Amino acid sequence: MSSRPATTDDSYQTFYRDRRVMITGGLGFIGSTLAHQLVALGARVLIVDSLIPEYGGNLFNIAGIEDQVRVNIADIRQGSTMNHLVRDHEVIFNLAGQVSHIDSMEDPYTDLEINCRAQLSILEACRRFNPSVKVVFAGTRQVYGRPDGLPVTEQHLVKPTDINGINKAAGENYHLVYNDVFGVRACSLRLTNVYGPRQLMKHNRQGFIAWFLRLALTNQEIQIFGDGTQLRDFVFVDDAANAFLRAGAHDSSNGKVFNVGGLEPISHSALVTQIVSIAGSGRYRHVEWPPEKKAIDIGDFYSDSTLSERTFGWHPTTPLADGLARTLNFYRAHLDHYVPAERV
Amino acid sequence: MSSRPATTDDSYQTFYRDRRVMITGGLGFIGSTLAHQLVALGARVLIVDSLIPEYGGNLFNIAGIEDQVRVNIADIRQGSTMNHLVRDHEVIFNLAGQVSHIDSMEDPYTDLEINCRAQLSILEACRRFNPSVKVVFAGTRQVYGRPDGLPVTEQHLVKPTDINGINKAAGENYHLVYNDVFGVRACSLRLTNVYGPRQLMKHNRQGFIAWFLRLALTNQEIQIFGDGTQLRDFVFVDDAANAFLRAGAHDSSNGKVFNVGGLEPISHSALVTQIVSIAGSGRYRHVEWPPEKKAIDIGDFYSDSTLSERTFGWHPTTPLADGLARTLNFYRAHLDHYVPAERV
Repeated sequence: MSSRPATTDDSYQTFYRDRRVMITGGLGFIGSTLAHQLVALGARVLIVDSLIPEYGGNLFNIAGIEDQVRVNIADIRQGSTMNHLVRDHEVIFNLAGQVSHIDSMEDPYTDLEINCRAQLSILEACRRFNPSVKVVFAGTRQVYGRPDGLPVTEQHLVKPTDINGINKAAGENYHLVYNDVFGVRACSLRLTNVYGPRQLMKHNRQGFIAWFLRLALTNQEIQIFGDGTQLRDFVFVDDAANAFLRAGAHDSSNGKVFNVGGLEPISHSALVTQIVSIAGSGRYRHVEWPPEKKAIDIGDFYSDSTLSERTFGWHPTTPLADGLARTLNFYRAHLDHYVPAERV
Repeated sequence: MSSRPATTDDSYQTFYRDRRVMITGGLGFIGSTLAHQLVALGARVLIVDSLIPEYGGNLFNIAGIEDQVRVNIADIRQGSTMNHLVRDHEVIFNLAGQVSHIDSMEDPYTDLEINCRAQLSILEACRRFNPSVKVVFAGTRQVYGRPDGLPVTEQHLVKPTDINGINKAAGENYHLVYNDVFGVRACSLRLTNVYGPRQLMKHNRQGFIAWFLRLALTNQEIQIFGDGTQLRDFVFVDDAANAFLRAGAHDSSNGKVFNVGGLEPISHSALVTQIVSIAGSGRYRHVEWPPEKKAIDIGDFYSDSTLSERTFGWHPTTPLADGLARTLNFYRAHLDHYVPAERV
C-alpha cells in the first residue's frame, strides 16, 4: 500500500489523513456516511456514483462536505471509466450495487450486470492499473439465506434465497480471488440490516426500516407481515461506516469476509413499536405476508461479529433507541430531500 | 411433470421411456454419454450444443446414435433461442458451460456470460415457457475450493479459488432459487474429476486426466506438478451420467445439491503410474508447479456422495483400473477424432 504500516485499534483514524480514497456508491446511504467520516479524518475523497433515479444516490447526502470531496458521476458498469478512476487511490470502498431483492427477482439481468460483471470490471481495473490498492467490498448477510442456527457466523453456509443474494456472493468471491490470486488486497463486510440518516425512502423496495420510518413520520399505518415475531439485528449506519474504515486500514482483513451485525436482535413488532413511540406519530397493523415476499423471506436472523472485533477491533456501539432517535430527527429536518414533493 | 410418478432405485430406467429430454452441452463429454444412455432407455433426445471449437463439443461423440437424436446447434447465451428450445421438454440436463479454470482467470467475462448470464436465460425460459420441466444442472466440486476437511460433504463451505468456481456456484444457486421461488424444479450435481471416453483432449486447459491419457497413448512424457502426493477422486463418465439420470427422475432431488464423487481417492503419482502401466506406453517426470496453476490449486480433495446414494440411489461403481482400460481402448481406436491430425 504505502510506507505507513497497517493499523490496529484506533490508529485507523490517523491512517486516513491525506489518504487518497475512492467510494463507489459514495452518494448512497452508507457510502455518503463513510465520506463524512473520511472527510473528518482528513482523507482526500473521490465519490463515484451513477445517480440512477431508482437507487440510493442523493446529492443531499453530502450536504456539508460537498466542498471537501470530489464527485464523479459514473456507472460502474462502464469498464473504461473504471479503468481511469481507480488509478492512484490507496483505498477503494466498493459500495455501488443493486440492492433490491425484489427487483432482482423481476430483472435478474440488471442485478447480474451491476453486482457481478461490474465488480469484475472494478477488480480488473485494479489488477491492471492499481494493483497495490486495498478494496473493501460491501457484502450482505443476505448471502446466508435462511439460517441453520443463530447467531450466524462467517462459517455458516452461503445459501442465498434470491438472485440478489447469489450475485452479491459472486461479487464478494471475486474480491477474495483477486486478493488470493492476483494480490489485489480485498475483503468483504457482510452487513446486516443497516439503518440511519441518508437512506433511500422514496420507495419500499430496498429494505423495510426506512420505509417504516417514513410511514411513522408522515403519520401513516405501518404494515407488519405475519405475526411480527421474526428477529433481526440492526446496525446504525455510523457504526457500519466505522467497520469499513477499520477494515480498510487493516491488512489482517485481506482475503476474508466479516459479519457486521447489530448489538442485539429485536422482533419486527418490537421495532415498529419503538419507531412509533419515538416518532410520536404513525400506527401499525398486522397483515398477511404477500406471497412474493414470503417466498424469499429468511425467518429469524442475527449475526455474530466476533471476527470483526478480533481482526480490526470493530463492534457495534449505538443502541437502537439512540440510533432511531437520531435517524428520526434527521428525516424530520430533511424529509423533503428523501420523499417526493407530492408525498410530503 | 407428468402423470407418471417420481421414481426410486432402478425405476428411473423405465421413467425415461418416450420422455422428451433436452441436453445442453449434449455433444460434450458427459452430455453425449448421457445421450447414449438416454437413447438406450428409449428417451426422445434433443441435443443442444454450440460446437465452439475450443470447447468439448464433438459430433463424433454421438457416433452410433446420430439417427436416434435430434441435434440443434445453438449457443445458450442466445436468450431467444433458448426461449424456443426449452418448450415441451420434460427434463433438461443442463451441462453447457465454460469449464476451464485457467481460461476463466484470463477472460473472466466470457466465463460470466456462459456460466452465469446464460444459466439465468435458460431458467427464465423455463419459468416463462415450460415451468413444469425438471432441470438437472452440472455443478462442480470446484465450488468448495481448498477443503477444510476430508471427505467433503455438501455441508462444506463454498469457497471457490477461481472465477470459474465462483460463476459455477452462482449458476448452481440460480437453479436452487428458481426451484424454491418459481417452482421450476431443479437440482445440481457437484461433479468431482470425471474421466472416460469422449473427453476433449485437443488442449490441456480442461482438466489433466484426458491430457495425461493423450500423452501416454502418443508415447510422450507426462509431467506431474510437485511431488504428486495430492489426492483426488475420479468418477467414470458412465457413472456420472447415471447420476444425472437418477437425479432427473427423482423429485426428492429438487432444490438440493449433491456430490457425485469417485470410489476412492488416489494420488496423482499413483494415477499416472496406472495410466502408463495400462497404456503400455508413455512415461512421467516430476516438475515444479507453474505459478499460475499453483495459485488456484486446492491440495487434496475427495468427496462424500452419501447424500446422492440416500436420495436417488446413486453410487460410483466403476473401479479406476477398469475405467482407465475402457477409456484407453476407446481413444486408441478413435484418437484421430480427439487429437488434431498433425499431432497424431
